[in-house]
Order: sequence, then structure tokens, then C-alpha cells
Amino acid sequence: MSASLETLNTPAAIIDVARMHRNIARMQARADRLGVRLRPHVKTSKCLQVARAQIAAGASGITVSTLREAEAFFADGITDILYAVAMAPSKLDQAWALRRRGCSLKIITDSVLGAQAMVDFARSHRASFEVYIEIDSDHHRSGVRSDDPLLIEIAKVLHDGGVTLVGVLTHAGESYKLDTPQALQALAEVERRECVAAAQAIRAAGLPCPEVSVGSTPTALSAADLAGVTELRAGVYVFFDLVMLNIGVCAMPELALSVLTTVIGHQPQKGWIITDSGWMAMSRDRGTQSQARDFGYGQVCAADGTPIEGLLLSSTNQEHGVASHESVECDVLERYPIGTRLRILPNHACATGAQFPGYEALEEDGSLRRWGRLHGW
Amino acid sequence: MSASLETLNTPAAIIDVARMHRNIARMQARADRLGVRLRPHVKTSKCLQVARAQIAAGASGITVSTLREAEAFFADGITDILYAVAMAPSKLDQAWALRRRGCSLKIITDSVLGAQAMVDFARSHRASFEVYIEIDSDHHRSGVRSDDPLLIEIAKVLHDGGVTLVGVLTHAGESYKLDTPQALQALAEVERRECVAAAQAIRAAGLPCPEVSVGSTPTALSAADLAGVTELRAGVYVFFDLVMLNIGVCAMPELALSVLTTVIGHQPQKGWIITDSGWMAMSRDRGTQSQARDFGYGQVCAADGTPIEGLLLSSTNQEHGVASHESVECDVLERYPIGTRLRILPNHACATGAQFPGYEALEEDGSLRRWGRLHGW
Repeated sequence: MSASLETLNTPAAIIDVARMHRNIARMQARADRLGVRLRPHVKTSKCLQVARAQIAAGASGITVSTLREAEAFFADGITDILYAVAMAPSKLDQAWALRRRGCSLKIITDSVLGAQAMVDFARSHRASFEVYIEIDSDHHRSGVRSDDPLLIEIAKVLHDGGVTLVGVLTHAGESYKLDTPQALQALAEVERRECVAAAQAIRAAGLPCPEVSVGSTPTALSAADLAGVTELRAGVYVFFDLVMLNIGVCAMPELALSVLTTVIGHQPQKGWIITDSGWMAMSRDRGTQSQARDFGYGQVCAADGTPIEGLLLSSTNQEHGVASHESVECDVLERYPIGTRLRILPNHACATGAQFPGYEALEEDGSLRRWGRLHGW
Repeated sequence: MSASLETLNTPAAIIDVARMHRNIARMQARADRLGVRLRPHVKTSKCLQVARAQIAAGASGITVSTLREAEAFFADGITDILYAVAMAPSKLDQAWALRRRGCSLKIITDSVLGAQAMVDFARSHRASFEVYIEIDSDHHRSGVRSDDPLLIEIAKVLHDGGVTLVGVLTHAGESYKLDTPQALQALAEVERRECVAAAQAIRAAGLPCPEVSVGSTPTALSAADLAGVTELRAGVYVFFDLVMLNIGVCAMPELALSVLTTVIGHQPQKGWIITDSGWMAMSRDRGTQSQARDFGYGQVCAADGTPIEGLLLSSTNQEHGVASHESVECDVLERYPIGTRLRILPNHACATGAQFPGYEALEEDGSLRRWGRLHGW
């Protein structure tokens, strides 16, 4: 018997493959139209098949969040890889091992100490590194401000130390807090302007800075213009999720990741449907809690993927989910008897995917294939 | 070079083995004193070495949250296993496969439909099942109330259908919302009383009900008396965590699980220390958010495990953690330079452990061993 949504062991992470391909094509078309290369962030899927589809659609390389991802995707044939987390000096040997084997791995820093560690390692190991300097364009997290003298200092440490200065990169993480096209377009312009300004400051100091890399899914889908930018990074667009829906950059029928679950009980007087999708399956991510519409732990859909209006996964324990209607009263025992299969759209695709060792890739003809997922560091 | 806390790849999940053994001994001594068997819930660790230590200390068997756990622990030699999530009818074949191989697997239900599915499967497959009925002692989640006529109906369906009725079980999940010894002791008594009442109701109906199983870490550590109870279940006590600290059932030096992390950057003007312990390492669990003391994503400690007063992991992204002082101003650049190693005590040990493929078991002599952890279903 071949697997189907009715026979799969639950909980299971389902990828709607047709939706995924449309999402990939949509972002690639945007990058093409804006005249920049697309370097998708594979931290969302951590899946070889998904990254292959992104490369096949035109991506120029990938972004990773761990060196473990870099190793696995390089082993699968992708050579142009950017590790977009500030380099810990203790991880330089792992990065150099990859480069020595032919991986064109780029690393990043936003400090003199981090840059000096790269220079020192390169000298003592006769190693070569290609480095981006991280720019703080929106006061979100890491990076150097474009007008901070530290920027030129870091660039000089790298360049004078014989390390290849590839460019500058920024991530407008504040975009996750916005939800109007105007605000998103404005932030995308800040992201572009600040990153380009940083590149210009480095060039004005007589140093090389060929690449200008920006991106987050919300700004990538909102930028009106990317003059001066050379590459775009985005991750979660490949699956989208309820947080992105609330931000306004996707519609419900674009959500490509869901959790297949089974009804295992009820508390009829409370209107509760108990499912086997607890937080171990959904993750503890409550990203929509602070947004205009709080979806609890997820939007409940029928097994065919059709959202059930007002039915949310309202709470979770480790292996128990409680689904309940926001307002509508209904006889949950009769409508969702034990054994009923449902699908839950998650708050945050990156976090929910991470709970599973693999995905079940669902094609339009109903066939399913198992796609693995990287776990750990 | 053998691994040490200074050379391990980060982030890493560290088990303080001496603390773990003390926690195991503490709970076993309580069960012994209360005159009940201890059946630890291994969903917290999902680790063979940890469960072996619990059995070696006197546990009579284990509780699991997935059939995947049952399969792995049975393969490791543990035969007395309780799967404490209401049985989905579609998983009966997997449960029966385990029993057929000699595993004394117990399953649970709280519905007539669930019980009937067990009876039907047993008949059609010549299978035998041992079943607990789940009791709702505190209106927390699943289960039947002890005075609900449904309880006897379910018991009759099972017994008359030829399925072995082992007993009743409850879990006072509401204990996680309490934080005084008085309230916890009172809830432990409700848990005991309701579960014993359910067993008595079943026995009064002329049906067997030998086992009365109760537990949650907070109530297990607070019960004054367990008259009528035969076994105690508890899980998170093996590691404890900040949620349990806030509930008041453990002290900081009992927390046995922490995440080893490396400082990778700063935003000195904001007092931020950027670490490589994002939510992918810590999990998205913010269990202390609704408690008396909110620890953010965790309590930051020095690499030797000593808590640093007022330094919390205040926010996270996927692979970035931001640590900052609650109030004290300090020069983060000087005190925590890039490359500094820290350890973070998590909100919820079950959720944080789940982010890692394995643990690093740290002995008192500083030696480290790798212990695997189950992932998926």
C-alpha cells in the first residue's frame, strides 16, 4: 500500500510541492526583474530537494545558518555558499576545511576581533577566506552602521591582512514587525540605502567591495528598486507561513508547509478537539501572538488543505494539541470524530520544520515522497 | 585532543551528570517513601543512557510520549512501557507489533470510540492489549471525570471486549500554573483523590482496576500522601528547568541541562552580547513568560555553570541569541569578548533537549561523552 494522507504516521510535516514551486518561481522572478542574483536562505527547509529546486529555478547559490548545512549542501553539489552568522573564531577550522575541499564558502563578521581572528588563522594555516562585513541597516540585531568608523577599520584589518573582502551584507529583520505595503517598501529602501552606503564608504576608502547583499522575505517582496544591490537573500518564502500572511506578503493558498495530525480525543463540553500535534510537532513558536491576528499554534485545515474558518490549534502540550473554534459553536464529537485527519498551517515554517527529521512531499496527484531534513550543528 | 567545554562545537546541550543522578535519586526516594512505584516519563530526555540511570535507581518501568520512544527503549531492554497519549486507532498496529515482540506496552484511552477501536483490533488481529483509562482530575486537558457515567461505559467496552483493563491514570497538568507549596500539595491531593475515586467507581461496577497512576513533577514532589495510588509518573525532574524553579520544586543548582554557547558579537551601546544560541538551540519555549520571574530565553551562566546574576538571554533569532543584563550596566565588550563560552539554563528542558540530536554528558572530572537523543515519530 503506497502512503497517502490517510495512512501516513502522524504527526507528519507535509510540503505541498506545487505551492513550493510557485513560491520559488515568484521570488526568482522578482530577483530577475530587480536585476539582482538570488541567494535563497536554506535554513527554512534544510532540505536538499528544496534547495535543488531553488537552484534549478535560477538561484546563484545559497545562504546557510550553520556550517553543518554548508557541509551537507556542498556534498550535494552546491559550491557557492554564504554562512550568514558572524563567525566564531573556534569555527574557522571547519570553514577552512570546506574551502580547502573546493567549496566557495563565504563567511561574515562585524567586529575587529572577528576580522583579526580570520587574518590570524589565514596566516597561521596558509588559508584563504572570502568575507562579507555585516551591516546593521535597521537596528535589528547584529552588524556595523554604515557611518560607523568601525566599518572601515574592519575592512582594513581584513584587506591588509590578506583576506578577500567580498562585500557587505545586511538583513532587515525589523520587517517582521510591519504589516503594510508602504511600511515594508520604506524599510526595503532603508535596507538597500544603508547597505549601498556601507559599500560606498568602503570603496571611498580605497578598498574593494564588489558585492552588496540584502534581504528578508518581507523586504525582498516589497522593494521597489534595488539600485546598487548585487544579490538578494530570503528564506521563508519557499514555504511561507501565518506570520508572513499577517505581514501581508502572501495569501493563505501560498502556504506550502502544514502538519498532518490525527484527532485522538475531545472535551465536548469545552468544544475541544484533542490532536496528536503538540508543540513537539508545531514547535513552541507563537509568532502571530504579537500580530494583528493571533492564530494560536496554527490554522486548522481539512486533510485536503482547505482552511476551516475559525478553527485554531489554541494550545499545545508536548504531544497533545487542543483545537477549538474561535467563536462558532459546533458539535466537535460529531464533526471531528476520533481518527479524523486534519492539517495545521504553522506560525513559523522554519521552526515547525525543525521539529521533524524529514518532510512528506505531496504532489498534485496525491503521491508522497520522503525528503530528509538536516538536524543539529 | 579530548573534547572539553572550551573545544566543543557550539551550540551544544550539556547534561551535568552528577546533578542528573541527584535528581533521579531525589524522585526515587520520594516514590519509595510514599510507597508507590516510579515510572519516569522519558519524553524529557529521549535518551537511553538517562533512562538506564532511572531504571538502575529503582524505576519500575517507563512512560513514553511516542511509539517511536517505545520502540527504541524496548530495543534497549526496557519492557514495561506505558504510552501515555490517547491511542489513535491508526497506531494500534504499531502498538501490537511491539507487544507481539514481547514488549509489555500499555496504552490509554478516554473515549468509547477509542476503546471500541482497541476491542475491534484485538478481535480481528487476535491481539491482546493492556489499557489504562485516562482520568481528568484537574480540568487540564484530556480524560474522563471520575463521576462521569462515561467512565464505566468505557471500562465495560474494554473489559467485555476482552481487553485487559489495567487501571486508571491521570496527570495534573494544572500544577504548572502554581507556585506555592500549599497550592501544589492541595492539587496533588486532588490528583490522588480523583484518580482513586475513578478506580473505586470501576471496582464498584464489578470491573478490575488494579493500577492507579498519577503524576507530574510538581505534584510528585508535593504530595503529602498517596493512599490508594500504585505508581507515580514524572518527567522533567530528571533535568529540572527554570519553569520548575519558578514553580518552586527545585533550586538553581539542581538544573542539569544547559546550552553551551559562544559569544560571536556585540552591540555595545545597547549592552547586547550576541551568541550562537538562537531559538534553534534554546527552542521557542517561553514558559517563564507567564510566571513570577520571566527569564527570557534563559539564564546565562559562566562556562563552569555559575549563573551570572541578572544576565538573561533576552531574545533569539534562529541562530542568534541576544544576552543582556536586566538592569546592571557593564562593558559587555570587555567582560564577554568574542569567543567567550557561556552556558544557558533553559525555560523548559523537554523543549530545549528536543532541538539537539544528542547531548554532551559532562562528568564531575570534566570529561565529556556523547549521548544520543531520539528525534521524530
